[in-house]
Amino acid sequence: MKESHCKRGRVYIVGAGPGDPGLATLRAIEALRIADTVVYDRLVSRELLRYVRPGTRLVYAGKMRGRHTLTQDEINRILVEEACQGRIVVRLKGGDPYVFGRGEEECMYVLSHDIECIVVPGVTSAIAGPAYAGIPVTSRLAASSMAIVTGTEAEDKKAPRIDYKNIAKAVDTLVILMGVHRLEDLIRELLEGGLDPDTPAAIVQDATLPTQKVVEAPLAKLAEEARKAGIRPPAVIVIGRVVELRKKLWKQA
Amino acid sequence: MKESHCKRGRVYIVGAGPGDPGLATLRAIEALRIADTVVYDRLVSRELLRYVRPGTRLVYAGKMRGRHTLTQDEINRILVEEACQGRIVVRLKGGDPYVFGRGEEECMYVLSHDIECIVVPGVTSAIAGPAYAGIPVTSRLAASSMAIVTGTEAEDKKAPRIDYKNIAKAVDTLVILMGVHRLEDLIRELLEGGLDPDTPAAIVQDATLPTQKVVEAPLAKLAEEARKAGIRPPAVIVIGRVVELRKKLWKQA
Repeated sequence: MKESHCKRGRVYIVGAGPGDPGLATLRAIEALRIADTVVYDRLVSRELLRYVRPGTRLVYAGKMRGRHTLTQDEINRILVEEACQGRIVVRLKGGDPYVFGRGEEECMYVLSHDIECIVVPGVTSAIAGPAYAGIPVTSRLAASSMAIVTGTEAEDKKAPRIDYKNIAKAVDTLVILMGVHRLEDLIRELLEGGLDPDTPAAIVQDATLPTQKVVEAPLAKLAEEARKAGIRPPAVIVIGRVVELRKKLWKQA
Repeated sequence: MKESHCKRGRVYIVGAGPGDPGLATLRAIEALRIADTVVYDRLVSRELLRYVRPGTRLVYAGKMRGRHTLTQDEINRILVEEACQGRIVVRLKGGDPYVFGRGEEECMYVLSHDIECIVVPGVTSAIAGPAYAGIPVTSRLAASSMAIVTGTEAEDKKAPRIDYKNIAKAVDTLVILMGVHRLEDLIRELLEGGLDPDTPAAIVQDATLPTQKVVEAPLAKLAEEARKAGIRPPAVIVIGRVVELRKKLWKQA
């Protein structure tokens, strides 16, 4: 579309939270209520779509690893095309749009077309996922530092390399998102990096959802236990002494 | 109070988000609506307290660094005493209760008295603070890993030591919470650890609030620029190449 024909609506890049629709923010709901178009990802709670007005255009963007319904370029283009009709467009993404969500790419693309872009942060599954399993990512007693990394980096050559070995040794808690499909490789790398095979570790599948499933094991046994339990993506991996606090906090999870 | 006299209400440990009341979650609001007692921290938006019913007991817990209105032990005790009256108690905390919020200590204490404790994660200032300043903590182009640490560790001898030097080298983005009061020490340690003095860095004061103030400078000049700008706590420090994306994303912040 030629810029001169663009009516310039507005785009909201919105984090829907980790799955539990109750973890959506007030701003997310407000944006959905005024949206003309909602472009939503696979992991977004369908219950949130009930907040839109009748007649709102709903566009499913997919985003399963390696099986995107729409490519990132197509999503970017839809956001601009819809906004250029003068529409209010909500791009609804799982978790937080800036935590491995590519929200910044979408926002930069929108802004480069001189269309307003507003980011609405969300609750990230990297923190809420463990929390719903009774695991605090930090604790005065067990963790003064935490890192969040993605497990999919090997597939993305443009992104900076992840130094799993040194990260794991430098921080008290390591959270890995989107890493279940290559769990054994990741664990091997962490062990080679010098991490204690007995380091407490857990995987939280379908975090914050009624279908949530948790597997807890020492790091060296985590892959085996996950396989036995039939763990599948989406899942959050959490490694560190904080996992032990689950014994004391589990009742609430 | 003797256990036998405890009527066992319920305690919600709730993240209020980073400051902007619109970043509170639906679950946080639901908890406030049914609360009999709310124990809230200094950095919690007062606007959120409007959601409580008339007659709800509001207890101010303070929590300014080094100047607590109530000690942690007193807070723990109030939560249990109130719940033992059969009340629904909401412990409303800034950010996320499990990101340097000591929510896990409060929850463990409550559970140890056989009282139900439910944790409601919140949007953390570590991610939303930079986002509101136009800085994504991760980006496919600039950061595949991020770490969150506290800057107050030196004061807390029980907590694990933070290895700032190695953390900064191991991850692409480093976020430091509660570190402004000893910014020069922190930066010296990071530079001694081998971090490039030209590493892009920023401080976001009063993140997500109307009073938000951002200072951006190369790491080696950050303390000086912060002093010139009169930066005071609360503030989020963010270090890494992602800070450069602010140029392209700032319009929306």
